[in-house]
Amino acid sequence: VITRADALALDAADPLAPRRAHYVVDDSVIYLDGNSLGRLPRATVGVLREAVEQQWGQALVRAWPGWIDLPSRVGDLIAVNLLGARPAEVVLCDSTTVNLYKLAHAALHAQPGRRVIVVAEDEFPTDRYVLAGLAASCGAELRVVGCDPDDGPALEALEAALDQDVALVCLSLVGYRSGALLDLPAVTRLVHAAGALVLWDLSHAAGAVPIDLQDGGADLAVGCTYKYLNGGPGSPAFLYVRRELQERLGNPIQGWFGQYDQFAMGLAHVPRAGVARFLTGTPSVLGTLAVEQGVRGLAEAGLPALRAKGMALTALLVDLVEQAGLLDPDAGGFALASPRDPARRGSHVCLQHPQAWQICQALLERGVVADFRVPVRLRLGPAPAYTRHVEVWDAVDRLREVMAARSYDAHPSAVGAVT
Amino acid sequence: VITRADALALDAADPLAPRRAHYVVDDSVIYLDGNSLGRLPRATVGVLREAVEQQWGQALVRAWPGWIDLPSRVGDLIAVNLLGARPAEVVLCDSTTVNLYKLAHAALHAQPGRRVIVVAEDEFPTDRYVLAGLAASCGAELRVVGCDPDDGPALEALEAALDQDVALVCLSLVGYRSGALLDLPAVTRLVHAAGALVLWDLSHAAGAVPIDLQDGGADLAVGCTYKYLNGGPGSPAFLYVRRELQERLGNPIQGWFGQYDQFAMGLAHVPRAGVARFLTGTPSVLGTLAVEQGVRGLAEAGLPALRAKGMALTALLVDLVEQAGLLDPDAGGFALASPRDPARRGSHVCLQHPQAWQICQALLERGVVADFRVPVRLRLGPAPAYTRHVEVWDAVDRLREVMAARSYDAHPSAVGAVT
Repeated sequence: VITRADALALDAADPLAPRRAHYVVDDSVIYLDGNSLGRLPRATVGVLREAVEQQWGQALVRAWPGWIDLPSRVGDLIAVNLLGARPAEVVLCDSTTVNLYKLAHAALHAQPGRRVIVVAEDEFPTDRYVLAGLAASCGAELRVVGCDPDDGPALEALEAALDQDVALVCLSLVGYRSGALLDLPAVTRLVHAAGALVLWDLSHAAGAVPIDLQDGGADLAVGCTYKYLNGGPGSPAFLYVRRELQERLGNPIQGWFGQYDQFAMGLAHVPRAGVARFLTGTPSVLGTLAVEQGVRGLAEAGLPALRAKGMALTALLVDLVEQAGLLDPDAGGFALASPRDPARRGSHVCLQHPQAWQICQALLERGVVADFRVPVRLRLGPAPAYTRHVEVWDAVDRLREVMAARSYDAHPSAVGAVT
Repeated sequence: VITRADALALDAADPLAPRRAHYVVDDSVIYLDGNSLGRLPRATVGVLREAVEQQWGQALVRAWPGWIDLPSRVGDLIAVNLLGARPAEVVLCDSTTVNLYKLAHAALHAQPGRRVIVVAEDEFPTDRYVLAGLAASCGAELRVVGCDPDDGPALEALEAALDQDVALVCLSLVGYRSGALLDLPAVTRLVHAAGALVLWDLSHAAGAVPIDLQDGGADLAVGCTYKYLNGGPGSPAFLYVRRELQERLGNPIQGWFGQYDQFAMGLAHVPRAGVARFLTGTPSVLGTLAVEQGVRGLAEAGLPALRAKGMALTALLVDLVEQAGLLDPDAGGFALASPRDPARRGSHVCLQHPQAWQICQALLERGVVADFRVPVRLRLGPAPAYTRHVEVWDAVDRLREVMAARSYDAHPSAVGAVT
């Protein structure tokens, strides 16, 4: 039996425990949604105040020399610390959606003889929608690979979808719902063997699992910064283009920030060298500065330690749910809707229950912030940078109370908007 | 002779003079670059602190119900107060560059029989680059209309460029360099007579001149919010799609924020009703909240009053330069590189001089922030919401000193990066 004292002992021995003090934390709430919107780093409060009140407020345009290289500077920080990529392979700009569009468009147009994009059925909706729209407007075909909703696509299913018509395969390294972690080098080898490129969505992986884009042979990637990277709501996304591919690929949205000698304002578009050609318009300065602080926090903690703790927290969570007798769908409990092996998932787990929406609301009422994914999944993400083991213990204890009293029945079953 | 006392008297009689107190202002600097990066509204300081420290920091994902409609809410505020548009015709999202791409792509694909995009030679670089890239990747042609560099394209030149192959005409309502203000209804009639659509870039017009998109018959528009709208560096841009066109046009970047029933996360992309279909990924919450405050400030001042003051300030500036004997290129002075009639330009003016870069640096040294546009233009933008007449007087007086002493010769002639 895992007791609350055991959880406290795990916290006492946790090398990352001091990291929690680097974030703004309200101890009256157990926050298990850092995979949706990461916490505010304390350092960011001062950085944003200074950027607003001094840089914008006082220096005004004279602050631009310090801002102009932010997309590359923070891109490099992410590349080297979180993605196993080289400098000048990552920039911060736009949203994940827009970056996915740019890179998928570039990949498709660089291979005119190949007209198929492969995507997993369970890929994050915005990715599927963007690829479907791109395929439709370019006369290409979107080939959807089925997959177990509680796991990622199987290598065999991916392999079966590959042929000489495939230009691009787009996959999430960690599934947004199941949390399933794919084998990046193995998938990449498979895709390369078919002569195609692979575009990774790292939104639920970056900052949660070690990633090695260079050694794994990855071609392209995009990812979100407001989850584990703690960049704040709607902070700019990142994109990665392998150095060897940069000159072959064109940005479909040829903006002035992707222009060589931007302020010459010449007539012809001449792309910048390297990954910076994938910049578009004026970057969000405040958002980029916030991402910089978020990434620094993760770099200080170190990815191996974060990964170890992320696995420990999600394993503890599943074990406690099982210990409470709740991992039994036939007895009114939950089905685990994520891989059971912590090494095979990111830093969140999903529990399936027909009344997941109501249970999520009942938890919220008890001070546990989780999230819900249609139609029947409760998603629990104990972000390793600031979540304590005892919080996981307390959260499962409250879940046990909610389930024992069936207090969730009191909540309306109609699903509201959630992000 | 216009004296400094005259300028002070104009300020004393200025109905907008009290508006200056609504902005963070350092009186030791004369800021004539609100057309590049607008000042920080005082209200924004508190709003951003609250958004960061309370909403993000404490409420975390629980703040999303208050954020989710921001792009439409602030879009409506802009539509009704600044653009003469109707609710549900404007949203705030992405950058001007990305929005221009989306709308131009939509216009081109809605008219498959027409394969030409018309743009003015002096259009802002990012617009030209985006349209050139779009044309190249869609097998369309970019037709460039020449124009007087100190004025906008002539109606006759535009008319000559129009034929049955033209799908779209893209123009800035106020030129980024010359400041020339085009006649929106007249241009629109001309373009519509050729059966094409018109896409306005309102970046240098919105907040500076009254705009009537509905009555003027405008089809599409985009614009920047970090200039006269005071949204802060890299704040999200707006886009406008006339209500009657919304269902005909498709967003090429089909993201989840443009999806009907976004959180159902269904397999098929179904666009949202109205202009919201042109949203893409997760919006920048901080940037959007800042734009809201900036627009409220302009709405309180009122566009007619802002326009009247903008014309008065730029006219005063030109008159003072002339009075100082500096409007004479043959005598080492400047050529006016903007229309002379204030009714024919926005809220900034350009002065041409072979050593404009050095003069701009010499002014900066004397506490006057202007900006420079390659190769030979000094751009001066006295934003009407917070600039005083006496600042214009003092700025021209310092320009007179700089020119008399030729102190600008001491500055290196190599052009540095400017935004």
